[in-house]
Amino acid sequence: MNIILSRDSQVRVMEDMVTNAEKSFGQFCSLLAAYTRKTARLRDKADQLVKQLINFANMENPEMRATLRNFAEDLAKVQDYRQAEVERLETKVVNPLKFYGVQIKQTRAEIKKFKSVRNNEIKQLEKLEKLRQKSPSDRQTIVSAETSMQRASVDASRTSHQLEETVDTFQKQKLKDIQKIFLDFVTIEMVFHAKAVEVYSSAFQTLESYDLEKDLEDFRAKMHGVYGRYDARPPLTDTTLSPALPWSLARSAQSTIQSQRKEAVSEDDSAEEDPVEDLRGQAQQPHQ
Amino acid sequence: MNIILSRDSQVRVMEDMVTNAEKSFGQFCSLLAAYTRKTARLRDKADQLVKQLINFANMENPEMRATLRNFAEDLAKVQDYRQAEVERLETKVVNPLKFYGVQIKQTRAEIKKFKSVRNNEIKQLEKLEKLRQKSPSDRQTIVSAETSMQRASVDASRTSHQLEETVDTFQKQKLKDIQKIFLDFVTIEMVFHAKAVEVYSSAFQTLESYDLEKDLEDFRAKMHGVYGRYDARPPLTDTTLSPALPWSLARSAQSTIQSQRKEAVSEDDSAEEDPVEDLRGQAQQPHQ
Repeated sequence: MNIILSRDSQVRVMEDMVTNAEKSFGQFCSLLAAYTRKTARLRDKADQLVKQLINFANMENPEMRATLRNFAEDLAKVQDYRQAEVERLETKVVNPLKFYGVQIKQTRAEIKKFKSVRNNEIKQLEKLEKLRQKSPSDRQTIVSAETSMQRASVDASRTSHQLEETVDTFQKQKLKDIQKIFLDFVTIEMVFHAKAVEVYSSAFQTLESYDLEKDLEDFRAKMHGVYGRYDARPPLTDTTLSPALPWSLARSAQSTIQSQRKEAVSEDDSAEEDPVEDLRGQAQQPHQ
Repeated sequence: MNIILSRDSQVRVMEDMVTNAEKSFGQFCSLLAAYTRKTARLRDKADQLVKQLINFANMENPEMRATLRNFAEDLAKVQDYRQAEVERLETKVVNPLKFYGVQIKQTRAEIKKFKSVRNNEIKQLEKLEKLRQKSPSDRQTIVSAETSMQRASVDASRTSHQLEETVDTFQKQKLKDIQKIFLDFVTIEMVFHAKAVEVYSSAFQTLESYDLEKDLEDFRAKMHGVYGRYDARPPLTDTTLSPALPWSLARSAQSTIQSQRKEAVSEDDSAEEDPVEDLRGQAQQPHQ
């Protein structure tokens, strides 16, 4: 029964092909879906970083604030492109791989149909064999069985041919899809990476042009402002005290109230070590 | 006690500053560590995809096999760059943020030292107050207490100045570090994305130049080879049978053995519909 062996072999090869394709496309689908998910998680982390950068920027002096806000904006822009990457990967890579299951089902149905036709062929062949052995003289029944057998065989031959065409189409579509899906994957990735290079180049400029000294001036002014605020508070009526000798023994006879005032004045003394900075501190008070 | 208020305020401002920086850098550290981890996970998924591509390629015909292997190689190259990105993010971004904790500890120690010096100042001041109220006539004890008070105050003033310098250095370093760390982050990302664009461009060329028709020829030859293999098996001694009429009624009187042979021959008949393809199939048998 070599024809049946041959057709079994044909079916086996085709079934293997479909099974392998199904398995491979399934694995590609879940791997690329996972790749897309991981990309989305990376985007989420970067989005959190953007938020944290903005929060941090808001606590900083104007120069750093502006720098970090611009940087955060660029980082957010990269995430927008990453989001587009994720959406495009889903639409043009993961979904076609999922959809591939439909084609596999159609091919499987085609194989199943062929198998049932082939089984009928076998049945007719067996029937004919039996008749020939049991009643070799019953020409009319044998001719009738031969006609059925012939029909079944023609059916099987036609279905086999159809199956061959289906498998050819299946293979062609599979190869085309593989090429298309990975070309789309590469294009999506390439576009994203190119955009990222562009945006990060601008972010680099922003960060590099940050003026540290300007920020430090603001900071120092603020810090001296902290002293300035308290210096301004107590009413300094007793101005006869020598600020150059704040803790001299001469003060020992004075009242505690007076000594408190002196303590306040002593702040001015320590500030006198850098009077310009102190003045700046006073001037910067609205910043606080 | 305005000086104490002022110094309390100074300490509070500095403690807030250090606490905020610690919190912010801690958040940046864990966010960027998570970002790096997610990048590593993305690399892992892509590595799996590379393996799967190679496995799949090995089952395919030469043209697709070569295409997918080249593509897998490019995809692996991108992952090598991603691995370099992960390592550089760890070394130049995450680790410096971790190390930042050491600087915070030093500043905290500085603040603690200042606090203890300031507490001594308060103690000496309170001692002096008590003496003045209890024994205002005991000049010698008061003078001695005033000397201690003066020393404590000078200490506090000097430590306050030191603290101010420490905080100035701290702030300067913090701003510098922020700039440096994010510049490094942007540079690392930029280099990775630029490399990815380069490699994916080459991958695009590879995938686009894939010759589908060449592969389909191989495939069709293989599929016909499946028939060919079985056709070659039975010894075809009876060559007088008309292959044009495989299931004609004329065969009804023949033996089952003969009809089996005919069945084998019938395969040749169905192949006759496309004799060129069948010949190609026979010729391609070594491929199997």
